[in-house]
Order: sequence, then structure tokens, then C-alpha cells
Amino acid sequence: MLGGEQDDMASIAEHRENLRYLPGFLLTKDVRYARAGEIDDPCDMCVIAVPSGVVHEVLPYAKSKGPIVIASKGLEPTTDGVLSDLVEAAYPDNHVVALSGPNLAVELAQGIPTVAVAACTDEVSAALVRDVFFAPTYRVYISDDIKGVELAGALKNVLAIGAGISDGLGFGDNTKGALLARGLNEVARIGLKLGARLDTFLGIAGVGDLFATASSKLSRNYRVGLALGQGQTLQYALTSIGQVAEGVTTCQVATRLARKLGVQAPICEAIEAILNGKVDPRRAVSELMERLPRREGVLVGDAELPGNN
Amino acid sequence: MLGGEQDDMASIAEHRENLRYLPGFLLTKDVRYARAGEIDDPCDMCVIAVPSGVVHEVLPYAKSKGPIVIASKGLEPTTDGVLSDLVEAAYPDNHVVALSGPNLAVELAQGIPTVAVAACTDEVSAALVRDVFFAPTYRVYISDDIKGVELAGALKNVLAIGAGISDGLGFGDNTKGALLARGLNEVARIGLKLGARLDTFLGIAGVGDLFATASSKLSRNYRVGLALGQGQTLQYALTSIGQVAEGVTTCQVATRLARKLGVQAPICEAIEAILNGKVDPRRAVSELMERLPRREGVLVGDAELPGNN
Repeated sequence: MLGGEQDDMASIAEHRENLRYLPGFLLTKDVRYARAGEIDDPCDMCVIAVPSGVVHEVLPYAKSKGPIVIASKGLEPTTDGVLSDLVEAAYPDNHVVALSGPNLAVELAQGIPTVAVAACTDEVSAALVRDVFFAPTYRVYISDDIKGVELAGALKNVLAIGAGISDGLGFGDNTKGALLARGLNEVARIGLKLGARLDTFLGIAGVGDLFATASSKLSRNYRVGLALGQGQTLQYALTSIGQVAEGVTTCQVATRLARKLGVQAPICEAIEAILNGKVDPRRAVSELMERLPRREGVLVGDAELPGNN
Repeated sequence: MLGGEQDDMASIAEHRENLRYLPGFLLTKDVRYARAGEIDDPCDMCVIAVPSGVVHEVLPYAKSKGPIVIASKGLEPTTDGVLSDLVEAAYPDNHVVALSGPNLAVELAQGIPTVAVAACTDEVSAALVRDVFFAPTYRVYISDDIKGVELAGALKNVLAIGAGISDGLGFGDNTKGALLARGLNEVARIGLKLGARLDTFLGIAGVGDLFATASSKLSRNYRVGLALGQGQTLQYALTSIGQVAEGVTTCQVATRLARKLGVQAPICEAIEAILNGKVDPRRAVSELMERLPRREGVLVGDAELPGNN
């Protein structure tokens, strides 16, 4: 396990505990703990699990004899693309696997039954990741829709912020349910335009992860939204959480992508406007209620896209 | 508004309050309150909002000059069909509209922003229902997939029981997310086999309602599951809730339908076994973890159905 410059890997190796991010859980002694750059020989399988914004920084250390697994959930802000594109460009000879799903870290550490998806265009690599991660309380499916799995995992963080905002405003499960369903519609459309499959958005990495993230006090993205809905500033919300909330950056990418692809995304746009302090959250929800389409046409022809009737 | 034999409609009319089911909210004085049979002339639009098991009992009183709206969310246990089939058979000259979505009654009464879908094969009737129900905090979409809307609204109650069971067992959002995603997969497959559209299950009446129901202490189905997960008997759970939990009956219909249609539905089957007291909830979840397919293939060919690989 390689840490970044700010990580006290010596302490982690000694105490076998990550006091900063996962206190209270003993880490395995079966792996080496070191700072990136301290170990130069390629590993058998490399797992990248840093915030997506710094994936490009750790890439030089991702040398692997086998697959390179991406556990980060986000998009690359400089290219608006999925992280696997970045990794594949750096390591064209390795298969890249995305590992995603409703996998809140604390619950995983507690041994709570959890399911994930390992997605790769190469089935053998996906199956290898599945088998390596196998545990009685952790089951991994395989899928070949890596782009869909990455997009679903990244974009759901935007919707989790929206769910937090709704709850922070004191709205109910009716509001949150509508927001998430219509939001899922928006991000699924972005995904379809980029070549992802619809069933991925309906699966573990899509709806499954969205369910877990959008209602959990353990989700940093949900908590950022909750704080915003309760009237705090973004700066204050992020500082009080003290960890990276991927959805904040991903929201900018999502709205850029939606505009570029011609996908109407009023919910993502509203969340971005709230994040930027451009609109009051309560007003944004009222405006969304006005803007919602009058016909439920989820993924059908342009004639039934929101705003056209 | 017509009540059944057990409803004290005189009291409701006098106090404009339904003390039994919705205490604390003043009802409108713009409608008449009477017991079924006391008013014989057809209304302009009839809304059936009784538990689905007694829809056939109130049918003789559903005479309407316009559309007949079904707000009940369930299936007809004697035919395993949707309620609209029942209503259409009784009133072949009326258009039947299903009104569904994340619409927890207390939140609606509180004026919390809420969205619904009015589905009918006749667009004019759907639009009429949309316009009649229009309110600043209640927005109604239209759809032509009435079967999908009814199936999604009914079958999600089964999954809400499952979500409650998982929470009752002390599992986390990871478990619930996986359970709901795979469960949605099962019920969407049942729906597709019956001619419903996939986008309906991804929409307000599908994912939207599932989100609201599966995490809400206000949902009777969720509470039944929660009690079962905490070790109570079904009888005790139903008695302590004191209201109808549609999902209990719908679960039997769902598993019958799945078998008849050749859809593998391990999650619905497990919930039914728990409801029947045939399996311990904790053991059922463990068995589900074992049985989950190794490949995430949501709505693709039979080769990727659960159990085939």
C-alpha cells in the first residue's frame, strides 16, 4: 500500500491503522506500507484508490504486472473523461478494471455485507479482480461496461449532494425520491451519449451506489449537500467535513459534459449553481419544480426530452 | 369523498379531518364526504385510493363521467394482474389513469414538494388528471405506460420490505443499496415480460418511489420489514403498525408472477420466505450473498441471468 506525501506511512505500517481516514480498524499485515516512490518493482495488481483529482499524480507509481484497478470514483477535470482513459493512455499494455458499487469504507471495514462490480473490456482481468477481492461479506460481480460503471459511480456523487441539499432544506422523502429519479435520468443520458449501457445505471454501480450514497450520513457528498441546504457556505461545509467530496468537482464536469452532448440536465445545473453560491437552495428547488417536464419520457426520443412539452 | 363501512364519514365531514389515517390536517370543504352508496350520481372524475385488496369491493361505486384514477398501489391477488385491468373490465367506456410516484401521504399533506406520474393510454385523460391535481408543491407528469407505472408502484413495496429487513438486521447502506439495485432488476424484468417499459422503472414511479419508500420510517412496508429484521413476527409487525402494508400481499403475487414468467427473482423469493416465517432473515441475506450472480447482466440475454454463470 503506497501513500502520498501527506500520508504518514511509517505510522500506518507500525500501528497497522489509518488513524486519519479509518481509525479503529486493524489493517492486514500481509501487505507492505510505503510512500509512493519508495518501492520501485511492479506489483501483481495495482489498485488506485486516491481522490480522482490526484489520480494523474500517482500514475507514475501504478506499475503493475497485472490489471490496474481504479477504485476512485470521479472524472478527470482536465479532459472531462473517465479515469480509465487516463490510466490506459499511461499503461497501454495493462488491462484497466473499474471497481465500483455501494461501498462505504467504514461499512466495508465493519464487515457489513457489501456488493461491487469489477468492469473491464477483458473478462479474464475482471474475473481476476473478482476472485482477489472475494470475501464472505464482499461479493464482486463482473461487467464489460467499464465506461458505464465509471460514469455511474462518479455522477451519482453529484446527485448525493442534491439529496443532501433537499434533506438540509427540511424537505421529505417525496422530494428526494423525485430528485434522485430525475437526476438519475440526467446522468444516464449523459452516459448513454458516451457509449455506456443503460442497464449499468440500473445496476449495483448505478442505482445501488446512489441508494447507499444519497441517504447516508457516512457519505461526504451527502453531508456537503446537507450543510448547504442548512444554509452553510460551501467553504464551511468542505472544511468541517475535512475530506474530499468528489461530487463538487464532478458536478462541474457533469454540467460541461451535458452541455457538450446536448443533454438537458436541469438538476445537475441547479446543484452546480447552488455549489457556486449563485442561487439559494430553496429557490433552486422551487425553480426545478417549475422546470420539470410535463411528460415522463426517460430515455426515449428527443420529442420527449424535458423542456420540449 | 366516499368512505367504506368502517369509516366514520360523518365525523370526517363534520371535523374535516381524518383522525384515523391523517390526523392534524384540515381537509378541503370543496368536496362532499359520504359513505359509499350514499351518493349515486356519477362524479366528474373518480379516484380510487383504497388498499388494492379491496378495490374490487369499491368498484360498484366508481361511476364516473370522466377518467377513473387509481391511486392504490398493488396488484390484484385473484388474477395476479394490475388494478387497471380490473377497473377497465368493470367500466369499459371510461379511461383508466394510474397516479403513482413517491407520494408519502403525510408529506403531501405537509405541502412538501412532491412529484407524481399520471399514466394512461389516452393522453387527454392523463393530461386532465395532471391539470386537476396541479398545485405549487405537487407536480404531475404524464406517461402512456400505465402497466409499467402500476407494476413499478406495486412491486417496489416488496423491495421496501426487504430494505427494512436489512436495516432491522443492523446492516448498512452498502447492503441496502445492493439489495435494492438487484431487487429493482428483478421487478423490472417481471415488468418487461408483462409489456412495461424499462424507462418507467428508472423514472418517478420506479426508482423515485423506491427511494422514498425504502428509506422512510413513514412507509408501512419499510416498517414491516424493519420489525421482521429486528426479530418480530409478521403478525406482531402488522398489528403494531395497524394499517395495511401492501407489500406483504404483493410479494406473493410477485413471486408467483416471476415463476410463471420464468424470471429468476431470488430477492423477492427470500422476502417471501421471511414473511412466511420459513427462513431466518439473517440467514436469508447470507444465502442471497451466495446466490447473487457473478456477472452483472441486468436486462440482457438469458445467458447472463442470475444463476447461469
